[in-house]
Amino acid sequence: MRSGTITILSLLFSLHLFGQGVTAHVNPFIGTTNYGTTHPGAVLPNGMMSVTPFNVMGSEKNRYDKDKQWWSTPYSYENSYFTGFAHLNLSGVGCPDLGSLLLMPTSGELNVNYDEYGSGYSDEQASPGYYSNRLTRYGILTEVTATERTSIARFTFPEGQANILLNLGEGLTNESGAWMRRISDTEIEGMKLLGTFCYNPQAVFPVYFVMRINRQPSASGYWKRQREMGVEAAWDSTAGKRKLYTRYGRDIAGDDIGAYFSYQVVEGETIEVQIGVSFVSTANARENLESEQQGFRFDEVRAAASERWERELSRVRVTGGTDDQRVVFYTALYHALIHPNLLNDVNGEYPAMESDKVLTANGNRYTVFSLWDTYRNVHQLLTLLYPGKQLEMVRSMVGMYRESGWLPKWELYGRETLTMEGDPAIPVIVDSWMKGLRDFDLETAYEAMYKSATTEGKHNLLRPDIDDYLKLGYLPLREKYDNSVSHALEYYIADNALSKLAAALGKKEDAALFRNRSLNYTRYYSPQYGVFRPILPDGTFLSPFNPKQGENFEEVPGFHEGSSWNYSFMVPHDVPGLIRMHGGKRRFTEKLQAVFDEGHYDPTNEPNIGYPFLFSYVKGEEWRTQKLTQELLESYFKNAPDGLPGNDDTGTMSTWAVFAMMGFYPDNPTEPFYTFTSPVFDKITLQLDPLHYGGRQLEIEVVRTGKDARYIDKIVIDGKRFGGYRISHEQLTKAGKIVFYLKER
Amino acid sequence: MRSGTITILSLLFSLHLFGQGVTAHVNPFIGTTNYGTTHPGAVLPNGMMSVTPFNVMGSEKNRYDKDKQWWSTPYSYENSYFTGFAHLNLSGVGCPDLGSLLLMPTSGELNVNYDEYGSGYSDEQASPGYYSNRLTRYGILTEVTATERTSIARFTFPEGQANILLNLGEGLTNESGAWMRRISDTEIEGMKLLGTFCYNPQAVFPVYFVMRINRQPSASGYWKRQREMGVEAAWDSTAGKRKLYTRYGRDIAGDDIGAYFSYQVVEGETIEVQIGVSFVSTANARENLESEQQGFRFDEVRAAASERWERELSRVRVTGGTDDQRVVFYTALYHALIHPNLLNDVNGEYPAMESDKVLTANGNRYTVFSLWDTYRNVHQLLTLLYPGKQLEMVRSMVGMYRESGWLPKWELYGRETLTMEGDPAIPVIVDSWMKGLRDFDLETAYEAMYKSATTEGKHNLLRPDIDDYLKLGYLPLREKYDNSVSHALEYYIADNALSKLAAALGKKEDAALFRNRSLNYTRYYSPQYGVFRPILPDGTFLSPFNPKQGENFEEVPGFHEGSSWNYSFMVPHDVPGLIRMHGGKRRFTEKLQAVFDEGHYDPTNEPNIGYPFLFSYVKGEEWRTQKLTQELLESYFKNAPDGLPGNDDTGTMSTWAVFAMMGFYPDNPTEPFYTFTSPVFDKITLQLDPLHYGGRQLEIEVVRTGKDARYIDKIVIDGKRFGGYRISHEQLTKAGKIVFYLKER
Repeated sequence: MRSGTITILSLLFSLHLFGQGVTAHVNPFIGTTNYGTTHPGAVLPNGMMSVTPFNVMGSEKNRYDKDKQWWSTPYSYENSYFTGFAHLNLSGVGCPDLGSLLLMPTSGELNVNYDEYGSGYSDEQASPGYYSNRLTRYGILTEVTATERTSIARFTFPEGQANILLNLGEGLTNESGAWMRRISDTEIEGMKLLGTFCYNPQAVFPVYFVMRINRQPSASGYWKRQREMGVEAAWDSTAGKRKLYTRYGRDIAGDDIGAYFSYQVVEGETIEVQIGVSFVSTANARENLESEQQGFRFDEVRAAASERWERELSRVRVTGGTDDQRVVFYTALYHALIHPNLLNDVNGEYPAMESDKVLTANGNRYTVFSLWDTYRNVHQLLTLLYPGKQLEMVRSMVGMYRESGWLPKWELYGRETLTMEGDPAIPVIVDSWMKGLRDFDLETAYEAMYKSATTEGKHNLLRPDIDDYLKLGYLPLREKYDNSVSHALEYYIADNALSKLAAALGKKEDAALFRNRSLNYTRYYSPQYGVFRPILPDGTFLSPFNPKQGENFEEVPGFHEGSSWNYSFMVPHDVPGLIRMHGGKRRFTEKLQAVFDEGHYDPTNEPNIGYPFLFSYVKGEEWRTQKLTQELLESYFKNAPDGLPGNDDTGTMSTWAVFAMMGFYPDNPTEPFYTFTSPVFDKITLQLDPLHYGGRQLEIEVVRTGKDARYIDKIVIDGKRFGGYRISHEQLTKAGKIVFYLKER
Repeated sequence: MRSGTITILSLLFSLHLFGQGVTAHVNPFIGTTNYGTTHPGAVLPNGMMSVTPFNVMGSEKNRYDKDKQWWSTPYSYENSYFTGFAHLNLSGVGCPDLGSLLLMPTSGELNVNYDEYGSGYSDEQASPGYYSNRLTRYGILTEVTATERTSIARFTFPEGQANILLNLGEGLTNESGAWMRRISDTEIEGMKLLGTFCYNPQAVFPVYFVMRINRQPSASGYWKRQREMGVEAAWDSTAGKRKLYTRYGRDIAGDDIGAYFSYQVVEGETIEVQIGVSFVSTANARENLESEQQGFRFDEVRAAASERWERELSRVRVTGGTDDQRVVFYTALYHALIHPNLLNDVNGEYPAMESDKVLTANGNRYTVFSLWDTYRNVHQLLTLLYPGKQLEMVRSMVGMYRESGWLPKWELYGRETLTMEGDPAIPVIVDSWMKGLRDFDLETAYEAMYKSATTEGKHNLLRPDIDDYLKLGYLPLREKYDNSVSHALEYYIADNALSKLAAALGKKEDAALFRNRSLNYTRYYSPQYGVFRPILPDGTFLSPFNPKQGENFEEVPGFHEGSSWNYSFMVPHDVPGLIRMHGGKRRFTEKLQAVFDEGHYDPTNEPNIGYPFLFSYVKGEEWRTQKLTQELLESYFKNAPDGLPGNDDTGTMSTWAVFAMMGFYPDNPTEPFYTFTSPVFDKITLQLDPLHYGGRQLEIEVVRTGKDARYIDKIVIDGKRFGGYRISHEQLTKAGKIVFYLKER
């Protein structure tokens, strides 16, 4: 009885919260166009499950069609033809995957062709853990919400025939093939293949599901698209079409299958549908569902989801700023908390890395590590605000090494997709350790990092071109588009990180070895152009050479997704050396400023997102950092569907905004320091983790000389004036109050 | 130790049997061309499993291609491009189904495209329970054998790379879709959808399987044909092709999937592959496999299969006749023992009729009831020689009623395909009961038969046109090709059967009702044409009318697969009335003889296969029966691939030959009587069942006046001259010795 009382009280409390608290400042539509590739669906912080409207196929009415162009998100704000709710979705990525298990309500006669059963919609509403719309064609109100590993949908129908469709044939993923079977009149279970993310045909994995409906259907069955057949089945009118299986309810499998449930309903009648998922088995999907939801209680699940978001988002409370700025901020924090996400089931089981084995996690196992992106700031944000999660993520990465022999680079549900370059797990692990998150198997972690940093030959999964790197200290251009400079620059960062850890562990030789390696970046510096320039195998620079080539995803020798300008200041671990290389402080400052002034800064791409903070390494030039972060925030981060500069990159872009708006940024991911910039709010309160930071509260206050005061005049920490513009993680997390005094200039 | 000794002894004994005993007289290639649609694969008597070479797809070299014409058998003797062994096959049917789980060995580089990996073959050998060939392209010796529910293949490879492929994407069935998963390096399990037999898109059922290989592969994986994809997967070179899954071993599903296992082998190395199947679950498939095979022991399984056939076939022992006649006879008996076949697993479980439920059988549950064919003679043969099986088949039919509400018509793995017409379960059940097989639930059986005979309306599944029949006593032609006369003629036979049973049970009213109905056949008699003629709804005969129309499967109003001539004597239950109708004995005999003389007799179709025996109802004309049966046997039943007149119809044609060659035929399937004709052998010994017939032995001896003595002079039974040409089942099964004295004329 006691726990029941608590549940009801907490329910009432949380119902009270809808539209209250900081979750009210989240606008899940931000980033849903302009290639932000976020989605407005229901998801919990770092939850396995997400439920999002799917509107990117089946109609000419849509502006974007997943089948007619490269497309990597289940939802586009511009589109208008809804074909169901996709379960399990990636947020802010540049390659298509997941976005499957499409759940669609229709009314009237049954139709199982997605290019015919889709609907327009109106009255879209989205808040953390909740999405709703009204299907204009059918007069159906849809609502969805989620727990960590399960979803629940509530559909309110007009009078007449109501249909619920589960389409396993379509989705964002380019993999196909599914199987399912009926467990009872109101329950099915099954499996769908997912994968092939980012040009990886072998990166394939299954998702298992259980679906339950809270009402006995008057009719139900399957469909399957039949092959085109010749004479053998000339009689079969379903050849090449979707055949309805009206009398068959055992196992069904195929490339394009689905299940339907039909009802006769009165006006306003609701039907609720739950889906539980697992990457291990249907039994685990069922256990997840039964553990995380008790019966069909849409409102309770919604309230719990909202409450959970409120709890996580309110670790930062801001006052001041405009309404839009608060929305931009909390939505960015919300986006930073989508990935990495849970992989393990409630019983702890998860699919082992690059294996068909099932293991049991101690704590949570995370997946979706887009590390080339997230090593730069997302893990630093998690370390500061959610250190428990970050620690479990580090443990997950070490676990991946233990299981597969390699740390992750771009891991997706137990598959290494090897997307982008570098050795980005190293800076993540080292950064966490440096900041005191040390409760993981350091010995194995070091072994793992050392392995990728030193294993010779093409079999080095993470650094397949290591031989040249070891021999020459840099990577010559061996193929036109081998991204050699980008690769080497990432290895320098990783090696620097490893040297820091080695030094801290007393491994002097290793420390020296890796530190020395990390400084070879200068080899790429072309005095003639004043930027990094690819080197040919004979040791000479590539000619002809255009340092601007590579803008707008144009292919360019030596650099990946960017021009030489986007990379020529990407040496966060040796900014003093970088300054020297660029000709000293003045020249450095001028050149770096020119990057912005002449349009060589790409706000959508990771290599240069730390650039604005580099000015603060030059005494007297810190105002440029402060000016730029505020200008970039104003230009590219808006409370609007196009409010992200481009792919959110599993929260990396959003995290940039979160830090920049709070007034400090971890511009060197291998070092436990942050560079200050001007906060945009009047007051920012960080509630730090009890376990890792003693539950301290850090208050950041901003005192402005006037409305347009954007520049830091001085910073006072706990009553003492702070010298300089970079603060250590330890000092920040132990501070009680930081006051920024901003002036107009 | 004891049982081990017994096993070895029985092994030695059975090895000794290869090529010995009566199984040596079976030529499984008979019927494998000329549309006989039998196959030479390994199967046990009425076994669930069968394993047959599959050679009807993938090459222009084949004369027949399942995808280029209507095709209903996995194997054609004329073809030459082998693409694996099909597991689970129908024998002697006219519609495609099953013939899937294609197991193919190859050598050299892995190739998973069936139109590329197929091979020519030589050295085909087939004997009951065994098939072998040599793949000329690969130099692989293949051998397959079976238990009731499992198979084992032995492949002997040349040196180099050996591959074993399991193709779930292709097969004879027009259904598609499969799922499988890896259990270990040497075991997979899965499911494939089957069905759509004979224009029945809803007649769908799953088969579950487990496959084990006796050697660890050096590489293994799956393949799946990928969809055609547009821009979304322009990078994916496997789009529209079969993609190899080299690193993924969990669940896979799709329309066209397969598994491969590769090995490095030395010259002459063998690999054995077992497959267990179930129509209930993969767990049952595994239990079947583990129960029916202990380890990989190909030779033992082969020996046991041969021994089992020897045991069953040797219930009849013949001497005399030519070698070819003995081969024709034993092969016909062999073909009569393929279907119906086991449906239940070793644990008794089976899929309930028209349901997703699983039930447990008491005794064996049978499936594949092609009753429009088999009610005429197959069940009579089983009743005589294998009464235990026949009883279980009757129980199976009654069980189908209990589960689905209707007796079967053309049942296939728990699905009523409603192929052909009539109410053929009734004569089967009544015939068995009349012959003393009464240990079944008669009350339910009667209820079931009464239901289909009396339920009004279109919802009468077995007699959807019953309303006209009840009202008018016949079926008028309501649609051009509604087969109305054929329908009614079948109903008359069924109603007559039911009347017999009703009379025996003292249900006088029912008996009279159904008997009266059964005599309405005369209504179709057209004095003008002297044959049955369709009647229009206004009661007049159809005009114009051509009694020959319908030959060679030409469509014809009123009749199904045959001309009026093929049907106009199909009144086995009232031959005296039929004789009167046709104008008396003389006119009847002349007209019946004209059917044969003028080419209106179709030896491939059931309605008229009893015709030769009708002469024996006219005193003095019995010689025509004797002449015809021997001529028909000589013309249409040969020891050659084209040795069947057409579709074997799950053994019906073969059974015709078995009875005709033994010298008696059950021409009225509703009556426990046989009509004598001249046996073709010198001596025929029937070993009757101990339980049902006291284990009697019936010896039939033939005394000929000379080599060409083909006509019955007299028949002496146990020393007494037999009067007439029809003998009751009771007298036959109680006789000790029947001597046929044959004269030349």
